[in-house]
Amino acid sequence: MSEFKLTTVEENEAATERLLETGAKVGADAWQFRVKNQTPHCKFGEQGICCRICSMGPCRITPKAPRGICGCDAHGIAGRNFLRFTAGGSATHSDHGREICHTLHTVSPDGNYKVKDPEKLIRIAKEWGVETEGKDVYALAHEMSELALLEYGKPFGVQRFLKRAPKHTQELWAAAGIEPRAIDREVSTAMHMTHMGCSSKPEALVKQALRCGLSDGWGGSMCGTEFSDVMFGTPKPIETEANLGVMVEENVNIIVHGHDPSLSEMICEYADDPEMIAYAKEMGAKGITVSGVCCTSNEVAMRRGIPMAGNFLQQENVVLTGACEAIVVDVQCIFPALGPLSKCFHTKFITTSEIAQMPDSDFVKFSAETAGENAKSIVKLACENFKNRKPELVHIPNLKKKATVGYSLEAIKKTLDTVTNSHVDETGTLMPLVDCLKSGVLRGAVAMVGCNNPRVRPDTAHIELMKKLIANDVILVLSGCSAQAAAKAGLMDKEAKNLCGAGLKRVCELADIPPVLHMGSCVDISRMMVLSSDLANDYGCNISQLPLVGCAPEWMSEKAVSIGNYVISTGIDTYLGVEPQISGSSQMEELLYDKVSDWVEASYTVEKDIDKLGDLMIERIEEKRTALGI
Amino acid sequence: MSEFKLTTVEENEAATERLLETGAKVGADAWQFRVKNQTPHCKFGEQGICCRICSMGPCRITPKAPRGICGCDAHGIAGRNFLRFTAGGSATHSDHGREICHTLHTVSPDGNYKVKDPEKLIRIAKEWGVETEGKDVYALAHEMSELALLEYGKPFGVQRFLKRAPKHTQELWAAAGIEPRAIDREVSTAMHMTHMGCSSKPEALVKQALRCGLSDGWGGSMCGTEFSDVMFGTPKPIETEANLGVMVEENVNIIVHGHDPSLSEMICEYADDPEMIAYAKEMGAKGITVSGVCCTSNEVAMRRGIPMAGNFLQQENVVLTGACEAIVVDVQCIFPALGPLSKCFHTKFITTSEIAQMPDSDFVKFSAETAGENAKSIVKLACENFKNRKPELVHIPNLKKKATVGYSLEAIKKTLDTVTNSHVDETGTLMPLVDCLKSGVLRGAVAMVGCNNPRVRPDTAHIELMKKLIANDVILVLSGCSAQAAAKAGLMDKEAKNLCGAGLKRVCELADIPPVLHMGSCVDISRMMVLSSDLANDYGCNISQLPLVGCAPEWMSEKAVSIGNYVISTGIDTYLGVEPQISGSSQMEELLYDKVSDWVEASYTVEKDIDKLGDLMIERIEEKRTALGI
Repeated sequence: MSEFKLTTVEENEAATERLLETGAKVGADAWQFRVKNQTPHCKFGEQGICCRICSMGPCRITPKAPRGICGCDAHGIAGRNFLRFTAGGSATHSDHGREICHTLHTVSPDGNYKVKDPEKLIRIAKEWGVETEGKDVYALAHEMSELALLEYGKPFGVQRFLKRAPKHTQELWAAAGIEPRAIDREVSTAMHMTHMGCSSKPEALVKQALRCGLSDGWGGSMCGTEFSDVMFGTPKPIETEANLGVMVEENVNIIVHGHDPSLSEMICEYADDPEMIAYAKEMGAKGITVSGVCCTSNEVAMRRGIPMAGNFLQQENVVLTGACEAIVVDVQCIFPALGPLSKCFHTKFITTSEIAQMPDSDFVKFSAETAGENAKSIVKLACENFKNRKPELVHIPNLKKKATVGYSLEAIKKTLDTVTNSHVDETGTLMPLVDCLKSGVLRGAVAMVGCNNPRVRPDTAHIELMKKLIANDVILVLSGCSAQAAAKAGLMDKEAKNLCGAGLKRVCELADIPPVLHMGSCVDISRMMVLSSDLANDYGCNISQLPLVGCAPEWMSEKAVSIGNYVISTGIDTYLGVEPQISGSSQMEELLYDKVSDWVEASYTVEKDIDKLGDLMIERIEEKRTALGI
Repeated sequence: MSEFKLTTVEENEAATERLLETGAKVGADAWQFRVKNQTPHCKFGEQGICCRICSMGPCRITPKAPRGICGCDAHGIAGRNFLRFTAGGSATHSDHGREICHTLHTVSPDGNYKVKDPEKLIRIAKEWGVETEGKDVYALAHEMSELALLEYGKPFGVQRFLKRAPKHTQELWAAAGIEPRAIDREVSTAMHMTHMGCSSKPEALVKQALRCGLSDGWGGSMCGTEFSDVMFGTPKPIETEANLGVMVEENVNIIVHGHDPSLSEMICEYADDPEMIAYAKEMGAKGITVSGVCCTSNEVAMRRGIPMAGNFLQQENVVLTGACEAIVVDVQCIFPALGPLSKCFHTKFITTSEIAQMPDSDFVKFSAETAGENAKSIVKLACENFKNRKPELVHIPNLKKKATVGYSLEAIKKTLDTVTNSHVDETGTLMPLVDCLKSGVLRGAVAMVGCNNPRVRPDTAHIELMKKLIANDVILVLSGCSAQAAAKAGLMDKEAKNLCGAGLKRVCELADIPPVLHMGSCVDISRMMVLSSDLANDYGCNISQLPLVGCAPEWMSEKAVSIGNYVISTGIDTYLGVEPQISGSSQMEELLYDKVSDWVEASYTVEKDIDKLGDLMIERIEEKRTALGI
């Protein structure tokens, strides 16, 4: 056991340094250099007090210019910017969910997309009050897809999935006036409220930011997660590997990057096709290796065991290996830098979505109707590109770790069933987890999510916090780039139990799980919302009373703020390692870091000292335990 | 006739100066001072090359830092900012339209809102393929409101109103892939495309900006206009007056400001109520005067003849008169400055919409269901506030002009009917206008719209361009703050015919119209789109061939950019006096000022020298005439 060792940040950094040397040979740019050029950042922007909402400005708030031309003050400007930031994230997540619903509309028994989890489909249909008896599963899928699509634009009513939350939570939302209506409407309302001459009252702007976030987490993202599971299978524990070392030098390497599994699933499908493997061999390779970057990586790892090449700030590294035949992307978090970078190598940078069109890329329009042929042509392109490799540039860092991924809520419950006494206990619940929390074997749980951000030494905050938390018997559920940070380090290896406190170690052994549980991609934070709801119900308390907090130590995207807003709105205190851009407004700080808990029983805490951030979370968990009398 | 004289910009400025003296006495701030504090503006923002879309930044493009941290260049950043700017405008206009549709859903024969133009309702229903025979008009209204609301969120299909456009225009939209789907979806798609790591290709961003604009002009705004007409009456020519002198010192002065007629119509209704007038007298006033600012002013002027106190940059002036008992606002273009400013006087600053909540205001929540009692309580508040006036601060500038307003498309056609020979000509068409254009009696037409902007000497560009154009036999259709600039100056007085060239003068006399026609508020630019469609059809040419251009010489809001995008997308070249914030990207300039015409047969021209801007428009009109062989 003593042999088990995490991959250190220093080892990863050394690998990156080596890759940047290759880059230097071919004149490649990299984020590490661009960060230097872009630092120091504009203080007005960082503090949220630059307004570009009309063309009378831009206006910037200073002591001598305390109001913009229209008279808006720092609080109104920071509040508007915060709401728009949220709207950008909510629209983005939800539009991904919409694409999934549209894909669901195309399923057919002999089509590109099928229903792989009919049970789940039927379960959701029943939840939505849709008649399922005697209905063909594909007819039901089409009916459900239309209902789901209407969640985006129905003229009346609120989101259907809100009913999954505990009654108390639903009451809080109603009382605060933040129950989300149609998903897109909340985005449009946010844009309207922040238009020149509309809202400048921070309370109103923050409330809409919460509502817009909720329309993501309990609307668009939840549709994305649930109907992805219906089509691609609900994740269950599966073995995979993580870090750049998963790329195979003698194979055609295809990297899938982005978010929507509709693309990546198809690529994986065709990369496994004997015809394509033969074609790769014909081109001089030994086979085809698909590996993932960012959330797409989570999607295909948890359903297929596809290895994870890396997370957000490693996306350039996959090209820098010189062994990447194609980096195939759909939407979100894709560096435009991949265009010029791929030109320095033989790599094909293949964009596929009309939503994400980038210069210096090959655009292969991907659509649900023609998904098969699109995917096949992409895989072929990659194979044909193998011969264009420049051998002198090829270097794949020899770093990878084993990981067990795929802990959907269903999988967690099934895992917990293995430790129940089926003679006396109800199965399919979270009661074993409740019992562990009550007994103190587990002190609490942290949902750790979010991106990397050069403002933080990449992955360090994720890893250091995880190490600290598991040592303190706090179990983690992870998603997004946080999950990949953990997997790369080795924290999703079951052997990582040896880094845990005695309680968590015992739990890991009994349940045969790693101490940090992979719950999926960033839209899958919706899984965590249902987990916390079920946990509160099983415990018999409110979500906000649970010894559970959220954490995004290295977040960078608008989606992260939308997530943060729905997480706190769900009653889960959220800890950030990067400051939201509101520090120019004392009122906004007061609202987000304190007052918002009057509405939703949770708020944000920002602490850039990562060690302190960990202490604060543990402190909060212990406070919650004390309040619960456990 | 020689007595007719326009009110000059100098006269207006002198009046403002006098009001600012009052302001100085009470320590009031004003935009004139805030502009000085905010100048010079940030160059990065002005040029569109500051990116605040994720929290790795803000990033700013310089020669030494040609890419942001993610690798996005100036073109991608400016393109994203431009698309988001459009999305803000489109969402805002369209959400106003949505509110109208929701109000339509509440109509009842004895309710707050009624169907005043059932004919128009039936006409639109037939257009939409809805059965009207034997249907109760209120039942039809409810059915239509639900269909209209689905235009915002339907999962499939494109906007219903697109079919109003000439076939050629529809074909262009289809070929360019810019037919707008559900209105809110285009906003969400725009936000998604501009999220970190999505689109950075200017062509893609500009196309979505066109589509998002079209979803406004041919979607949300058109719903707003059409269903406002259904509920409040389709405008027809009506006399009114304009400029601050319309306020009456001895009366309770209520200013309505904002956009949605649902509020202002009700305020006007109750201000006319004998009970309220008696109440005003009880409070020591002689009566109640309602006057308007901004687009709300257009709405109530064209349907009720309510006088226009002023436009966008005059909104503080109404408070500075010291004679404003209440400024009642709903949404958009409302200075947050009105909060602190009203505190320097006795004025009640009454906000009514959850979309536009501002500090230092009295919030009276207005909703369609309780509109009557809300309006009544607001009028009462204003009356009760009369006694709080400080007489020493009261000064209403003695400036006002007569104006004829209310030229809806229906009204224009009816007016043209008066000059047709009903024995030989078809009525209800634009043929007389076509004939005038063909014969050269009229050289062309300009749709002049948009706001004021301190970057331009207020109203000057509007007025100087109008004078130049009418002198050159170019007829104008106006909306928004441009319309109020004209009305204040006197250009909507029929006597303004004396400032026209001989051709236009003759047309004004024959048709008994002013040379600049008031078509309504900014959502009513949708009327101009139908006008241009009908004109092209009646002429037998494409819209882009007509001697017709659009102009927004002093625009400032996101809505203006959304408008501009749908106007050029409709095939109408558009001339701007204020630069869009894209000058940091040569590719964006090339697209908007040139290449976009490959898709939609029209583009933007920017010229800050207003005289030259006028010359360019006349030149373009003459080019179009030559091409048509007229």
